[in-house]
Amino acid sequence: MLEQLKEEVCRANLALVAHKVVIFTWGNVSAIDRESGLVVIKPSGVDYGVMKPEHMVVVDLDGNVVDGEMRPSTDLPTHLELYKAFPDVGGVVHTHSINATAWAQAGQDIPLYGTTHADYFHGSIPCTRALTDEEIAGEYEKNTGLVIAERIGDIAPLTLPGALVKSHGVFSWGKDADQAVHNAVVIEAVSEMAFKTELINPTAEPASDALVEKHYSRKHGKNAYYGQK
Amino acid sequence: MLEQLKEEVCRANLALVAHKVVIFTWGNVSAIDRESGLVVIKPSGVDYGVMKPEHMVVVDLDGNVVDGEMRPSTDLPTHLELYKAFPDVGGVVHTHSINATAWAQAGQDIPLYGTTHADYFHGSIPCTRALTDEEIAGEYEKNTGLVIAERIGDIAPLTLPGALVKSHGVFSWGKDADQAVHNAVVIEAVSEMAFKTELINPTAEPASDALVEKHYSRKHGKNAYYGQK
Amino acid sequence: MLEQLKEEVCRANLALVAHKVVIFTWGNVSAIDRESGLVVIKPSGVDYGVMKPEHMVVVDLDGNVVDGEMRPSTDLPTHLELYKAFPDVGGVVHTHSINATAWAQAGQDIPLYGTTHADYFHGSIPCTRALTDEEIAGEYEKNTGLVIAERIGDIAPLTLPGALVKSHGVFSWGKDADQAVHNAVVIEAVSEMAFKTELINPTAEPASDALVEKHYSRKHGKNAYYGQK
Amino acid sequence: MLEQLKEEVCRANLALVAHKVVIFTWGNVSAIDRESGLVVIKPSGVDYGVMKPEHMVVVDLDGNVVDGEMRPSTDLPTHLELYKAFPDVGGVVHTHSINATAWAQAGQDIPLYGTTHADYFHGSIPCTRALTDEEIAGEYEKNTGLVIAERIGDIAPLTLPGALVKSHGVFSWGKDADQAVHNAVVIEAVSEMAFKTELINPTAEPASDALVEKHYSRKHGKNAYYGQK
Repeated sequence: MLEQLKEEVCRANLALVAHKVVIFTWGNVSAIDRESGLVVIKPSGVDYGVMKPEHMVVVDLDGNVVDGEMRPSTDLPTHLELYKAFPDVGGVVHTHSINATAWAQAGQDIPLYGTTHADYFHGSIPCTRALTDEEIAGEYEKNTGLVIAERIGDIAPLTLPGALVKSHGVFSWGKDADQAVHNAVVIEAVSEMAFKTELINPTAEPASDALVEKHYSRKHGKNAYYGQK
Repeated sequence: MLEQLKEEVCRANLALVAHKVVIFTWGNVSAIDRESGLVVIKPSGVDYGVMKPEHMVVVDLDGNVVDGEMRPSTDLPTHLELYKAFPDVGGVVHTHSINATAWAQAGQDIPLYGTTHADYFHGSIPCTRALTDEEIAGEYEKNTGLVIAERIGDIAPLTLPGALVKSHGVFSWGKDADQAVHNAVVIEAVSEMAFKTELINPTAEPASDALVEKHYSRKHGKNAYYGQK
Repeated sequence: MLEQLKEEVCRANLALVAHKVVIFTWGNVSAIDRESGLVVIKPSGVDYGVMKPEHMVVVDLDGNVVDGEMRPSTDLPTHLELYKAFPDVGGVVHTHSINATAWAQAGQDIPLYGTTHADYFHGSIPCTRALTDEEIAGEYEKNTGLVIAERIGDIAPLTLPGALVKSHGVFSWGKDADQAVHNAVVIEAVSEMAFKTELINPTAEPASDALVEKHYSRKHGKNAYYGQK
Repeated sequence: MLEQLKEEVCRANLALVAHKVVIFTWGNVSAIDRESGLVVIKPSGVDYGVMKPEHMVVVDLDGNVVDGEMRPSTDLPTHLELYKAFPDVGGVVHTHSINATAWAQAGQDIPLYGTTHADYFHGSIPCTRALTDEEIAGEYEKNTGLVIAERIGDIAPLTLPGALVKSHGVFSWGKDADQAVHNAVVIEAVSEMAFKTELINPTAEPASDALVEKHYSRKHGKNAYYGQK
């Protein structure tokens, strides 16, 4: 069932390790087949060294396992809320990458200081509010997805493909699993740059709106001219 | 004698290098066979590149060598005190990993800023007091173990599986050698995150108690739901 | 056409990844054949993992493609302005390397704090002014080259072989593509050193003029005595 | 001539790259044969990727080449002064490793904050004064050796096997080339730890004298008990 998507999701999980944004089991990737409404996700707590496509778990949007022998990732309900809130999104990633997690623990949005950031994100990378004690005691993983969706609000999610969850880590997304992984790596690189920018110059200014528009639109949208046709 | 434990301890020592928390001979791992009360530990000052299971040294809880050709690690008496103080612990690790050692040299506990930390440690990672001149002049390595045990006090050691020794480095532990290594790697990652968190936001707040309980309990204890059954 | 230069440019692009100053497609290298006035440059948005010499694109100094199947790098007009402004330059590189980009985002020149820097750069590594909204809305990539040339002014470009573009990243150059790559790596290393120098000592002083002259001239110019004859 | 020493020096040079304290040609190693008073040193500006034992250059203590086809390292006169000033030293290393060079550029001694440092250095790692303009204009490389020797003064050099040269980089030494390389790697690690220690706690205190004595003497001197007999 969904064998190709299982391969994509497995490969995307391994790419998190290759890009050094995940160690041990500190991350997970999923992808959705929008036609059937089924989601393929990494199993919980399985070592990346032995992970194979057949270990991937298939669930419906209510979280019922419809294929696979193993338990899905504990963070599955967060992924599901993001798929429900963001209909254009095809892949979701979670990491605890060092620099981005430091921003999440600091509880601050990552300011858009330059074109590396603007090539992918059409504004600051937002950090959610803290979950309330009730949200934590209740359906915690689901509520994590809801505070991300709350923070993104009316913004088109593919123009701001990631967020920090306060005191926790990174969630990123994209049109598919590969793009969600790519965005997770971008968030880590941009996090390190922004952190160092502020140490070098505590009064550094964000990039101008004109520069943000230019870089974002030259890679995205109908007048994009970056890459091959 | 204890051939399987020697293999585990040798492999765990090499894992410290693979995880980049040890260079040269700046670390050591031991494990205890609780039935016989015998401890297997790395030999002193032997290069990781040539280390083999048969080099491991077997000692009793008084530090007498009962098997092996080589001298045990100089830090053996620290390991022995931890096994005596913490009856549930099966493996102990010592490292000088960069970021964690910086916290040890700073003489500060590592605050629990996020879920990466809470997934493994049920509170701040404590830093011991400095040893007195008398403790240093006397049985120094043994006294190092005693100040760690003093600092952990009544806390269940497997719920707080590591500590910093002031002006020195890291000791971590777990139910076996593998888990102790895992915790040493966690301490290094969490140390770097916490250091950067404070640079980004000098008034960053620790994670809420509710979040700490949730993350710790979803991985540990009787209602854990992380990983496979 | 220009097959040898295509090989050099392809190899130089891959060297950016090997030296860890580029991930994904975040960089590009070109070289010029001064006799014909033709420039060889990396194609836009092509993955380094599959890049081959035959993918390189040949353009004239007006940016017309004269050989190659693919679109040239989006940053081509910046490269072309640098070749026009700097007649001695044979290779140009662009990167978003982490530490150098942090300085670019901070909008500050990198002070010449030591001999590592002085061995290659005869003064601070300059950061351009921000482009105006008009310059961004107009021929953006060309104007990026013009603000670099404006900032270098009357300085001999091979004595100051690189600059930061504010809120953007690094451009470096050299007598050929290899040397331009070498200088991009130097800028990243020097950026990290300078950033840490200021954190260790906020009142650190630049190296003395005498030291700068000595180091620069022992590697460059007619009395150089570094390297082999 | 001195074929074994050439192999040792060549291997030690390559070890600098393997330990990530040198990129490009930014370092050099030499060793002395005390019986003949001849020094073997790396050739100037030769790429580490192609370096072989037969490229090593043999010189006398006045710097005359007595064997080898290539020019010796530009820093040779510094090495020679160190061999003259420190009769127990058998190997000398020079690097521009990132964190140590940041301390050199900051112009500050590296405080002895912990046991990682005390295991090798019996006190702060000293930073020399700046060379005067006259010293730079004169026999610069020789004078660099002299300011290091001036700063070490009456201290036994093997108890403090390295120093920072202000606005420049690292020189380390040892009883042979291997040990000098080892000490260069220690200086880089200790530099990063000390830099981060001060960022975590700006009022961090050096380790106590008792702790320094204990760690230094358990590895060195007649009562050492670290390592194998």
